[in-house]
Amino acid sequence: MKLLRFGKPGQEKPGVLVNHEILDASSFGEDFGETFFENNGLQRFAEWLKTHQANLPKVTAGVRFGAPFTRPSKIICIGLNYAKHAAESNMPLPSEPIVFFKATTALVGPDDDLVIPHNSVKTDWEVELAVVIGKKASYVKEADALHYVAGYCLHNDYSEREYQLERNGQWVKGKSCDTFAPLGPYLVTPDEVGDVNSLSMWLKVNGKTMQDGNTDDLIFKVPYLVSYLSQFMTLLPGDVISTGTPAGVGLGFKPPIYLKAGDVVELGIQGLGEQKQTARNYVPQ
Amino acid sequence: MKLLRFGKPGQEKPGVLVNHEILDASSFGEDFGETFFENNGLQRFAEWLKTHQANLPKVTAGVRFGAPFTRPSKIICIGLNYAKHAAESNMPLPSEPIVFFKATTALVGPDDDLVIPHNSVKTDWEVELAVVIGKKASYVKEADALHYVAGYCLHNDYSEREYQLERNGQWVKGKSCDTFAPLGPYLVTPDEVGDVNSLSMWLKVNGKTMQDGNTDDLIFKVPYLVSYLSQFMTLLPGDVISTGTPAGVGLGFKPPIYLKAGDVVELGIQGLGEQKQTARNYVPQ
Repeated sequence: MKLLRFGKPGQEKPGVLVNHEILDASSFGEDFGETFFENNGLQRFAEWLKTHQANLPKVTAGVRFGAPFTRPSKIICIGLNYAKHAAESNMPLPSEPIVFFKATTALVGPDDDLVIPHNSVKTDWEVELAVVIGKKASYVKEADALHYVAGYCLHNDYSEREYQLERNGQWVKGKSCDTFAPLGPYLVTPDEVGDVNSLSMWLKVNGKTMQDGNTDDLIFKVPYLVSYLSQFMTLLPGDVISTGTPAGVGLGFKPPIYLKAGDVVELGIQGLGEQKQTARNYVPQ
Repeated sequence: MKLLRFGKPGQEKPGVLVNHEILDASSFGEDFGETFFENNGLQRFAEWLKTHQANLPKVTAGVRFGAPFTRPSKIICIGLNYAKHAAESNMPLPSEPIVFFKATTALVGPDDDLVIPHNSVKTDWEVELAVVIGKKASYVKEADALHYVAGYCLHNDYSEREYQLERNGQWVKGKSCDTFAPLGPYLVTPDEVGDVNSLSMWLKVNGKTMQDGNTDDLIFKVPYLVSYLSQFMTLLPGDVISTGTPAGVGLGFKPPIYLKAGDVVELGIQGLGEQKQTARNYVPQ
């Protein structure tokens, strides 16, 4: 299944993509999110869909997508998980996963504007495969880890490099700005993703390809990451693990390239859909 | 006011401390949390309390306290915000605040057991003043910052030093374990706290004083922190800012002292109440 949410910010309704058509699934009576996942929602929704699919209203093309599920308890990100990206960042290959958090207030729909923070001059892009947790996970073994995965999403892990690297310790300052976590358009269940370790991924800025990678280059793979993280904290249904970005971020160019108002960022991962963000400056309110 | 929540984990009810008695405020009809704060809950509750206080059921002493409000969108922590603690950690004084996140899944009640993570050998304590956000804050000026504060809490920012400092980059791994964020017992509104920059704070392990500080030693103070953080991310009602710990953590002793099963940790901040945790080992389930 490809689950999604559509409508105005804060008023999104649940939907599902079937045969390239968006169907309004509001009549299921639940939004997609933590409570849905932890109450076996994916299986219940799949069963429900079988009998109701034919009668669901179609949604007009051009509708806004929200993030495909409601605000999770946490967005966990993995740093330097592709060898070439570690090299372009002038950082050593990690001996074990580098972990940081992104504020969940950064979450937006896949095609919402990127707001460049006030006084920011180093806003950068990062196409990433995001894993969505399906059930509570604590001290999970690697061999069992995929049972805890609800599905996968496309994520752009926007990063302000000055905030991240030059503003005194810890990356979170450069990762948490509003609009810095476009997620979606779809939550794709594992059965439709196929081999998650062989998905092509790309990102363009103003039409020019900047990132062109494949998840087969991931240093630490999905089952390992789920197991590893669950040794340090409990993962809740709906939690997001963003698995890192391949080479080609703005920081890696000589000289570096950063986003400015009007720039258009497009990205995609094979089977997970595409995103398109237009950058604009923060306007004081 | 001193707001609190009491009862079994996951089934807490709202309450309030009046004249050293705990009153059951369930009949107010709302739990304390993000929705409560953002809908002017503090003021509405204060008004309601005036007319209902005399009729509220008293709660028996010895009841379990939960965290004084429901799970926030984020727990933001400030590192090395007391000069002597920076020195004992062998780290330089920060030129601007060091910021890291703690997983909200770490949140527990003030007297719940501390669970030492599986295979952990360096679990440490940190008594901290926590600020609770009362309304949505983005790009707030320092002069206006206190208008965004709902109140203050006592927080023990438990930290696994090996996970934090020796497991490859970023502190979040050592800060996010389950039970590592005992909060409460009370959310104390600013009118009852008095001068937040002059509160004594202490922590004992097995009856021996380890930390004995005062918020007058804070390098970056509350209005500055609220304003500073709001430049990087939107703060939501109920979000927690834990302002850092004074000297006397286990890491700072020579040799270092870390917690083991059976140890009893007691702590308090003037006017904010006290906590008591007993350490126990993680038991695989």
